Amino acid sequence: MRIVIAPDSFKSACSAVLVARAMARGCQAAFPDAQILELPLADGGEGTQDALLAATHGCAVPLALLDAHLRPFKSSFGVLGDKKTAVLELARVCGLPLLAEAEKDPLETSTFGFGIMMREALRKGYQRFLVGLGGSSTNDGGLGFLTALGALFFDERGNAVEPRGKNLQKVAVADFTELDPILKHVSITVLSDVDNPLLGTRGATRVYGLQKGATQDAIEQLEAGMENFSEIVEKALDGTWSKMPGAGAAGGMGFALLALGARLTSGAKYLADVVALRETIQTADVVLTGEGQSDAQTAYGKLPGLVGAIAAECGVPAFLLSGSLGAGYEVLYDRFAGIRSIQQRPLSLEDCLPHTAAFLEAAAFDIIHAHHHAVKR
Amino acid sequence: MRIVIAPDSFKSACSAVLVARAMARGCQAAFPDAQILELPLADGGEGTQDALLAATHGCAVPLALLDAHLRPFKSSFGVLGDKKTAVLELARVCGLPLLAEAEKDPLETSTFGFGIMMREALRKGYQRFLVGLGGSSTNDGGLGFLTALGALFFDERGNAVEPRGKNLQKVAVADFTELDPILKHVSITVLSDVDNPLLGTRGATRVYGLQKGATQDAIEQLEAGMENFSEIVEKALDGTWSKMPGAGAAGGMGFALLALGARLTSGAKYLADVVALRETIQTADVVLTGEGQSDAQTAYGKLPGLVGAIAAECGVPAFLLSGSLGAGYEVLYDRFAGIRSIQQRPLSLEDCLPHTAAFLEAAAFDIIHAHHHAVKR
Repeated sequence: MRIVIAPDSFKSACSAVLVARAMARGCQAAFPDAQILELPLADGGEGTQDALLAATHGCAVPLALLDAHLRPFKSSFGVLGDKKTAVLELARVCGLPLLAEAEKDPLETSTFGFGIMMREALRKGYQRFLVGLGGSSTNDGGLGFLTALGALFFDERGNAVEPRGKNLQKVAVADFTELDPILKHVSITVLSDVDNPLLGTRGATRVYGLQKGATQDAIEQLEAGMENFSEIVEKALDGTWSKMPGAGAAGGMGFALLALGARLTSGAKYLADVVALRETIQTADVVLTGEGQSDAQTAYGKLPGLVGAIAAECGVPAFLLSGSLGAGYEVLYDRFAGIRSIQQRPLSLEDCLPHTAAFLEAAAFDIIHAHHHAVKR
Repeated sequence: MRIVIAPDSFKSACSAVLVARAMARGCQAAFPDAQILELPLADGGEGTQDALLAATHGCAVPLALLDAHLRPFKSSFGVLGDKKTAVLELARVCGLPLLAEAEKDPLETSTFGFGIMMREALRKGYQRFLVGLGGSSTNDGGLGFLTALGALFFDERGNAVEPRGKNLQKVAVADFTELDPILKHVSITVLSDVDNPLLGTRGATRVYGLQKGATQDAIEQLEAGMENFSEIVEKALDGTWSKMPGAGAAGGMGFALLALGARLTSGAKYLADVVALRETIQTADVVLTGEGQSDAQTAYGKLPGLVGAIAAECGVPAFLLSGSLGAGYEVLYDRFAGIRSIQQRPLSLEDCLPHTAAFLEAAAFDIIHAHHHAVKR
């Protein structure tokens, strides 16, 4: 039996690499002769760099940076196996799980550090970029990011604006003359599965602000700031990007990247292509995938939904292991042989998180045990 | 596909009948052409009467009784399809789930009402009894039960003792001369899966007292009372039953029934025989069972463990659906193709109970969906 294990991460509980490892242990225990391929995936958010480097035999470049609160810290960007393409994962600089609960405040956070990461990669000579968006703690429309790359933003009095979400309202003048000129010649591919525009009820602030820690008042302030900021940037660069799908990704980072000429693409599909997911699944007898939370949305562009769809097309039985099954998950039976939560008993979210790997292992064991039992009859 | 559904109850959340019904809905949805047989089971505790009546086409006899706190209430005993055998389920009179949290106090509770139930059945002419023990709120050694049947218990001053747990210590004299003489001629089969003796560290009080609501002080008082009571009863009736396996069942009801000449037998096995479980499973393609809580103990005498063992002997794949998987449940893979918790997401025990039927239905759907998927390939 050949088993392909291609999960997403379980958010803050377990990286995709550890999810795949836990599932593999369970499969191996249930069927010691199984051939098991671990293929940890990501959709542009947390774990994207790890998945891309693992798949292409790339490497990480350590870097001293500033985090979302502009505090010094260490991170890294990735370089694909082609040695030409830099992977910049926003979640590694401005990821929500990097902040303590009290630090989650999109009025204060900034993508400045992420801009420094790109600047450093440019200095090292990289001109092809894969930018993973998702899971950010910021809602600054890329104000910080663009500032770090040389753009200048002034208030009405001509003072430089400190690049944080709360200051989007203060921006009166944008000056892109000092923007790193090399940016005109680079190729930027943005991996994201968000198609929200920048503004309005479906925009970055109103849809994602709350989960980033914004109060209702802060959301109003940020939305007004984002309107002001995007209008000024669009005037200065003579373009319109705020209404484009994906402009609202990662607190408006999509908007800033579009303004730099980036191309947006589905993170899940891109990753699937890079790891040759379809070709791999075609060789499998069983496919396991997983994610922290599953519902009807999993069918639309989410990575495990894609894994299931490809497996169904290839006629290979696939199983979805989820931390939590939510409304409408049953639609996924169009592509999965089995769908289950890994929870073993009544437990609060807080109490079950430390058991994630153990529960994944047990669930994978059970799936392969039952499947083998049924097939051998 | 022929599916046999033979679950235990999920304690207070869902009766075995409703568990079987929910599982059947899930199976039918996954495989509309399936032939489904619902076989709700029990092990002597809650649901035993329902399971026996359903299996033998018996009927229930309504009765005005006293509950564990000696308050008037309505219950029923059962009569098997043979019209000769009465089924007396202790849980229907003194069941722990019948009491509010604050009412759980084995110092105050009594099996007196259960004795009245037996007396009423005797009056109606029944001479064969199946007595289901388990899930009781009492720890009175059968003091109440024997009192209701005509035994007399006095304290040192010659006053009649009120039959509650706290008064076991006060019993100084036992007089069985007024015990209903018909009891010498009846046959009593006790269904129980508890093999604890009456006294000591493995006895009724120390093992089950806490979960019945006794404080540590109350446990010491009840244990001392039980020692006193059993010594006096054994002297009066000239026998020794307190050390026998099962004497500690249902707060010492096992002891009282043994003293009346009852035969103790495994509730799970008895039920399995009555419903012709083995013959039924032999005709099945898949077997589903379930219980509220599963662990290594499920393998030893518990009903779902027995269902799994029979299915394994018959070579029929069986699946265990559990409310909660506990320590060592993995030993059950010697008999089950699959074992899973029905929990769909992180939820406290209190919050998941109302979802029991829905979760059972979804889990059964998933099992049959995956099984059918695997088998048809």
